[in-house]
Amino acid sequence: MYTLYYSPGAASLAVHWMLIELGVPHELKKVNMEAGEHRQPEYLKLNPNGFVPTMVVDGTPLYESAALLMLLAERHPQAGFAPPPGSPQRGLYMTWMFHLSNTLQAAFKDWFYPERPAGADAVEGAKASARTRIEECWDRVEAQIRSGGPYLVGDRVGAVDFLATMLMRWSRNMPKPANEWPTLANYIARMKARPSFKTLYTREGLTEWA
Amino acid sequence: MYTLYYSPGAASLAVHWMLIELGVPHELKKVNMEAGEHRQPEYLKLNPNGFVPTMVVDGTPLYESAALLMLLAERHPQAGFAPPPGSPQRGLYMTWMFHLSNTLQAAFKDWFYPERPAGADAVEGAKASARTRIEECWDRVEAQIRSGGPYLVGDRVGAVDFLATMLMRWSRNMPKPANEWPTLANYIARMKARPSFKTLYTREGLTEWA
Repeated sequence: MYTLYYSPGAASLAVHWMLIELGVPHELKKVNMEAGEHRQPEYLKLNPNGFVPTMVVDGTPLYESAALLMLLAERHPQAGFAPPPGSPQRGLYMTWMFHLSNTLQAAFKDWFYPERPAGADAVEGAKASARTRIEECWDRVEAQIRSGGPYLVGDRVGAVDFLATMLMRWSRNMPKPANEWPTLANYIARMKARPSFKTLYTREGLTEWA
Repeated sequence: MYTLYYSPGAASLAVHWMLIELGVPHELKKVNMEAGEHRQPEYLKLNPNGFVPTMVVDGTPLYESAALLMLLAERHPQAGFAPPPGSPQRGLYMTWMFHLSNTLQAAFKDWFYPERPAGADAVEGAKASARTRIEECWDRVEAQIRSGGPYLVGDRVGAVDFLATMLMRWSRNMPKPANEWPTLANYIARMKARPSFKTLYTREGLTEWA
């Protein structure tokens, strides 16, 4: 049994999506971020980092969306959501999980909270930098899918694709959203066509980028 | 056979250290970062992200230090450098690998390249923000080792410790380096006492923080 602490559209989305795809029993707990619940002592006891998602697995609270996706893929190998250990694409899978997490997701943090990287006086510079880093990463993702696709790592959908698509969704109101890259546009369309995506949207009450 | 592209003291250090610990055959290629070799087309073909490390594994160039550590731990399970799949600490291991990578290592990028997050006019603000984020992360690492140690995840040294120690080393010239946290000071001393650490320093020609 998994318990996922989530907020609609936040970094929990990829994990929620994969739980639906896996069809494994899970419980959802909505964190009211507008009311600051993720900064309350009760939540910080589960996740001292103060973000969503947190997922409780066998009684242990865990965090970092990419880690949770990787863990779920490993615990449910029958779904084939990660290249198995020892397979030729295993290393690329790990490279991309970390690259999306520490480069792209980190740049989005600066984009959405532009006072964070250098203070309130440097918001414009922070947004410009974040935008550049995000767009450079789309270039790399585009090249990877074009050469090694049709999914991010090979010909099977997996954990890395739920993460990548969530991040692409986050770009929807940016000056140059991910779907302006032609290979990404096609990829996004395929990911959004999955029946699980509709279930996810209904459950989280989302409408944008539907 | 592994081929590691490295630069002394850079993010390749943890991977180099673990290769020594594992005692597996590997070849080192030094990247002259001062001469900008990591931005040359030849290197970018291996690693479009333009950083070190890159490690070529069975002919495939891979990057992201945390990914390389995780891959090495998995390919050489006899070393016990990762809690095995299905074990109680597996999830914590993944959480910490990603947390160190996307929060701590990302904040160090801003610390060392403070014009990066918001431009040349916002260097002071960027350093202040990076420092806060790094120190908050040391608080969490301190708490984790105190409650779940004596290593970062349990009672065995592993991939996450080589990563964490490398990042602690990066703090050595900061106003409050990691060894000012009491549990971290003890942890660092144990990690530095490993014979492999001396080999690593000799090979990379390092002296600081010896």
